[in-house]
Amino acid sequence: MVYTTAVVGASGYTGAELLRLLAGHDGFDVVSVTAASNAGEAVANLYPSLRGAYGDLRYAPLDADALAGTDVVFCALPHGESQKFVPAVADTVGHVIDLGADFRLPPDVYAEWYGEAHAAPDWCDAFAYGMVELYRDTMQTSRHIASPGCYPTAVSLACAPLVAAGLVEPMIVANACSGLSGAGRGLKTTSLFSEADENVSAYGLLTHRHTAEMEQALSHVAGSNVSVLFTPHLVPMTRGILATCYARPAVSGLSTAQLLDVMRDFYANEPFVFVVEEPSGTKATYGSNAVHVTARFDARTGSVLAIAALDNLVKGASGQMLQAANLLYGMPETTGLTSVGITP
Amino acid sequence: MVYTTAVVGASGYTGAELLRLLAGHDGFDVVSVTAASNAGEAVANLYPSLRGAYGDLRYAPLDADALAGTDVVFCALPHGESQKFVPAVADTVGHVIDLGADFRLPPDVYAEWYGEAHAAPDWCDAFAYGMVELYRDTMQTSRHIASPGCYPTAVSLACAPLVAAGLVEPMIVANACSGLSGAGRGLKTTSLFSEADENVSAYGLLTHRHTAEMEQALSHVAGSNVSVLFTPHLVPMTRGILATCYARPAVSGLSTAQLLDVMRDFYANEPFVFVVEEPSGTKATYGSNAVHVTARFDARTGSVLAIAALDNLVKGASGQMLQAANLLYGMPETTGLTSVGITP
Amino acid sequence: MVYTTAVVGASGYTGAELLRLLAGHDGFDVVSVTAASNAGEAVANLYPSLRGAYGDLRYAPLDADALAGTDVVFCALPHGESQKFVPAVADTVGHVIDLGADFRLPPDVYAEWYGEAHAAPDWCDAFAYGMVELYRDTMQTSRHIASPGCYPTAVSLACAPLVAAGLVEPMIVANACSGLSGAGRGLKTTSLFSEADENVSAYGLLTHRHTAEMEQALSHVAGSNVSVLFTPHLVPMTRGILATCYARPAVSGLSTAQLLDVMRDFYANEPFVFVVEEPSGTKATYGSNAVHVTARFDARTGSVLAIAALDNLVKGASGQMLQAANLLYGMPETTGLTSVGITP
Amino acid sequence: MVYTTAVVGASGYTGAELLRLLAGHDGFDVVSVTAASNAGEAVANLYPSLRGAYGDLRYAPLDADALAGTDVVFCALPHGESQKFVPAVADTVGHVIDLGADFRLPPDVYAEWYGEAHAAPDWCDAFAYGMVELYRDTMQTSRHIASPGCYPTAVSLACAPLVAAGLVEPMIVANACSGLSGAGRGLKTTSLFSEADENVSAYGLLTHRHTAEMEQALSHVAGSNVSVLFTPHLVPMTRGILATCYARPAVSGLSTAQLLDVMRDFYANEPFVFVVEEPSGTKATYGSNAVHVTARFDARTGSVLAIAALDNLVKGASGQMLQAANLLYGMPETTGLTSVGITP
Repeated sequence: MVYTTAVVGASGYTGAELLRLLAGHDGFDVVSVTAASNAGEAVANLYPSLRGAYGDLRYAPLDADALAGTDVVFCALPHGESQKFVPAVADTVGHVIDLGADFRLPPDVYAEWYGEAHAAPDWCDAFAYGMVELYRDTMQTSRHIASPGCYPTAVSLACAPLVAAGLVEPMIVANACSGLSGAGRGLKTTSLFSEADENVSAYGLLTHRHTAEMEQALSHVAGSNVSVLFTPHLVPMTRGILATCYARPAVSGLSTAQLLDVMRDFYANEPFVFVVEEPSGTKATYGSNAVHVTARFDARTGSVLAIAALDNLVKGASGQMLQAANLLYGMPETTGLTSVGITP
Repeated sequence: MVYTTAVVGASGYTGAELLRLLAGHDGFDVVSVTAASNAGEAVANLYPSLRGAYGDLRYAPLDADALAGTDVVFCALPHGESQKFVPAVADTVGHVIDLGADFRLPPDVYAEWYGEAHAAPDWCDAFAYGMVELYRDTMQTSRHIASPGCYPTAVSLACAPLVAAGLVEPMIVANACSGLSGAGRGLKTTSLFSEADENVSAYGLLTHRHTAEMEQALSHVAGSNVSVLFTPHLVPMTRGILATCYARPAVSGLSTAQLLDVMRDFYANEPFVFVVEEPSGTKATYGSNAVHVTARFDARTGSVLAIAALDNLVKGASGQMLQAANLLYGMPETTGLTSVGITP
Repeated sequence: MVYTTAVVGASGYTGAELLRLLAGHDGFDVVSVTAASNAGEAVANLYPSLRGAYGDLRYAPLDADALAGTDVVFCALPHGESQKFVPAVADTVGHVIDLGADFRLPPDVYAEWYGEAHAAPDWCDAFAYGMVELYRDTMQTSRHIASPGCYPTAVSLACAPLVAAGLVEPMIVANACSGLSGAGRGLKTTSLFSEADENVSAYGLLTHRHTAEMEQALSHVAGSNVSVLFTPHLVPMTRGILATCYARPAVSGLSTAQLLDVMRDFYANEPFVFVVEEPSGTKATYGSNAVHVTARFDARTGSVLAIAALDNLVKGASGQMLQAANLLYGMPETTGLTSVGITP
Repeated sequence: MVYTTAVVGASGYTGAELLRLLAGHDGFDVVSVTAASNAGEAVANLYPSLRGAYGDLRYAPLDADALAGTDVVFCALPHGESQKFVPAVADTVGHVIDLGADFRLPPDVYAEWYGEAHAAPDWCDAFAYGMVELYRDTMQTSRHIASPGCYPTAVSLACAPLVAAGLVEPMIVANACSGLSGAGRGLKTTSLFSEADENVSAYGLLTHRHTAEMEQALSHVAGSNVSVLFTPHLVPMTRGILATCYARPAVSGLSTAQLLDVMRDFYANEPFVFVVEEPSGTKATYGSNAVHVTARFDARTGSVLAIAALDNLVKGASGQMLQAANLLYGMPETTGLTSVGITP
């Protein structure tokens, strides 16, 4: 069985990454790629890397009607565009898998963190939050899927086992480093090579919007409210997120061995999550759908550490959504995805 | 049919890259990996990226007897080691595919460029030079294969069509930039991050050993002697080679269009070579077995340019050798290999 | 007045950085540079960047007797070497300024964190801890100076004002990112370009030795015990440390404005510390002796953030020690030092 | 004597670099900085690195009248803007030093390479071409100075001694690698970190505008026409240009030693040009006004190599123009400039 597939907004990085991954997946047939400002251009002009798979395919303008009947539509539109676009296709296509931030949160939480009313609040319920390891059940019965943010995926997968087991207090300090591709292909001074190279900087202090997703996911596994103080940093690399998370123990007598065991149990059947003794660097996951997690208990200061490394464009975005698509269609979740990173 | 496979010297970068690629190839079953100084260690300790594919597999010490009967042995030993090792397995295994420089040249040329006598001169004839696009016929009937160097692959594939068609004079100026992985995982001051970062430097002026291979390959396609002045440069990236080659026209009335047509004809049936109008950067080939080539004729100065971009660890080493292994066993050359690069 | 100056261990990065800075300082005359394994080699061979200032100067072997009578001896020896060397010169030269870790801590604390007895415990008291902004008084009356570590300088200067004012609880979570030059010029696999590039990794979890210095410096300003959980990360750049520190408030009613005011007061007369509203990236300090600090209070989660950015080889090592030398000789602390970073 | 100084267009990289250098120069007092789109903003907001030197200084809008009477006006405007601006100040200020491409070429050559008529052709003669080592005499008697391009500085200084001595044929193949800062602070997709990182690409094939300057400078020293085929490459670093140039010998019996001697003689009295035996990488010049050059003769292929390394923002732009300003005012050329690079 091969499913017809469209990638909407395929000129950005997550769209291009979907095209790269779909090129290696036999179950999905890319029948349409759209890109507003680049309509008419060959995909291979923007991404010469895709020439081998897509030849002369050109971006089409975005046209909801033309997509009717498509099995699965991946939306990789700029922030805010999905809210406007989704109502036009949500009933006419099989599944919408949205890679933006538009359908990740309930409308009220969205409004609080994004500072604007949601444009399609009635559609939010139609989307399951697509963090596969934590929401698999909901996702399997949902028609549409909203991709988790890259940072929330890293932070939530690092902390979920410990939070779920009630081992830590419900206040997480999440410190994360991200490569520049997380900022997308849009033109911003801070994304220029000469600005980001040889530079590490913190940004979005106290108010980064991904915080809401982390609190949502961790509260979900905890069954009660978890709050997160999130501080993202830009580091001079293209791909990769490393989340280093801190919490205080909620029980006495913890040990590192115990934390690692809890992680191993929690992820025992997960094909993409690796619990490692020594913390992996992000490069261990480069180009793959893998997440490497580890933990430590520090008796000296009474602290718990949980660390996750992943590729923000794969497990943090397009790879996780291909995993979700596999899930929706009952294919093995690993189809078309690798857990082997490109190193060095 | 699945062939038993060993990777000898699997702790270095080309060995690890072979393991990465073999993990995605159903036709080869890795039954043994060896590493002299790392024997006993888990592959996943050195390369956490490989954990998903190789689990707890450990490096074995190098033992020629233990390899007897193996279908294919990939040798990724440090320079000079293959000459000593190959005689012990060349008759007892199906095929040896050597990724080092030991069997690329005739013994006399080897001695001239490497400044030492070859330790196994009688075995040199048993190895075909593995630059698939230029030596496919020889390779198909050879038992063993010697991997071309990364620079020679780039320079030769850039210039071969023009040299073969007699369009340029037989003296090529080959200027190339390489990422640091070409220098391997060995400890050298020049390979330190702090030395190589924010730095471009030329090295090996006039005497780089890869020159001999370029002259061999281009003379092969020309049917007469071609000389090459080769200047390699280190640039601050991990993977990738860009070769920018200059020659003077041997015929009058050349045009860029004609050069590109000659390239397209020459590579018409090649699954991994892409003739592009605008020069691709190396990143277009990251992690893939693709080569992107282009050419220009400059009427103003009477010069011909030919440019190639590739990933030195894939098409420049392990990927090309997996392509060679596919060829030896009559599998499609593209099996287990992609032409889609990881971008961004 | 010009003081005779020797740099011992001048082939490493902090030694070379001292030579760079001393080349622009009229008050110190470099009369001797030593390097054990590179003795006899020209400084300009190892560091072509220094050719303009040091011409044909060659490294001498280390010889304590030959240094007798020198006004100031900067020691930039590998860890552990200073303990052995200092007793031979501490009485015969004017001042020893040690850039290693050997004289930063009392012998018992040293033994605890470094896992070995100190080789020259009687000399520890002769060294003032050289974090100028926090220990200026002690330094002025001390004969010898021990350079603070790069991480402790960043973390301590970020948190000192808040700790000194009693605004935060005495347990700091210090998360820091460092460029590779902090690991020195020694040959280690983890320092290779291909390993560190496109990679962020945490290391030294729970046990990094610099923790002891942070606790020492912050307890010093607090007047009572402060504990620190320190997690360093390697990021793909050469220079720079960014420390992002977290604490819980010790008083109610805090605000970001108040924290910034406290910082501005604390550093009002410091020529190299800049209190900034928006967090600076490390590149703002590249090549300079500046530190940029900022702070935030998050009422939502009840947390305090303090951030510092600096160049680990300048303010984190050689620059701070030149500042210390200026202080010892009563010169303006800014002599030969700039607070202007190289950007981009 | 202190000269009043304005930097026009000081929000771009060459303008900011001028501000950095002027901060360390006692002879020039920055009385005005302008920036069209950033007027009103604090310099330290765009460049936190400059906070220590410029405090609260804000960009003013560009106003020619307000500049009247200023001793020296450095123009670092976007391409094409100087032609419009210069006529309004050229008679009312002491000196204009233009860092753009507007006054580097005679109007007819400008029109040919830039594809547009020059807007102020009558003013071109008022500007000396500011490549100090090759045009010092002209510059000393000129009122205004046009900054050479970064690539032409590297290529011309590499080849000038050999061309001047008639040792090579008058056709140079100039292959150069540049860091991203050469592309400026403007927003372009190709300047994004994620595009340029881990990537080397050739661009501007056959037609890069800097070619005309190289031909002008080398013809100037040769006393007859020299043509250049120039191929620039972008490499993943911020600063630095490495030019690797190829020519054929014009005389017989050349040797590398002879070429190096010719270089040493040619640059014997130059404070910023270093003739080195082994080719320096660009990092040897980072942040400095130095140029490192070397050469080789290859008897095997009958070729001459000449290589130059420099920092494109210093010797390739702002540093060279400060050197020019020193020259105009009779100060030592080295005032406020260092030949010591920042390494590592």
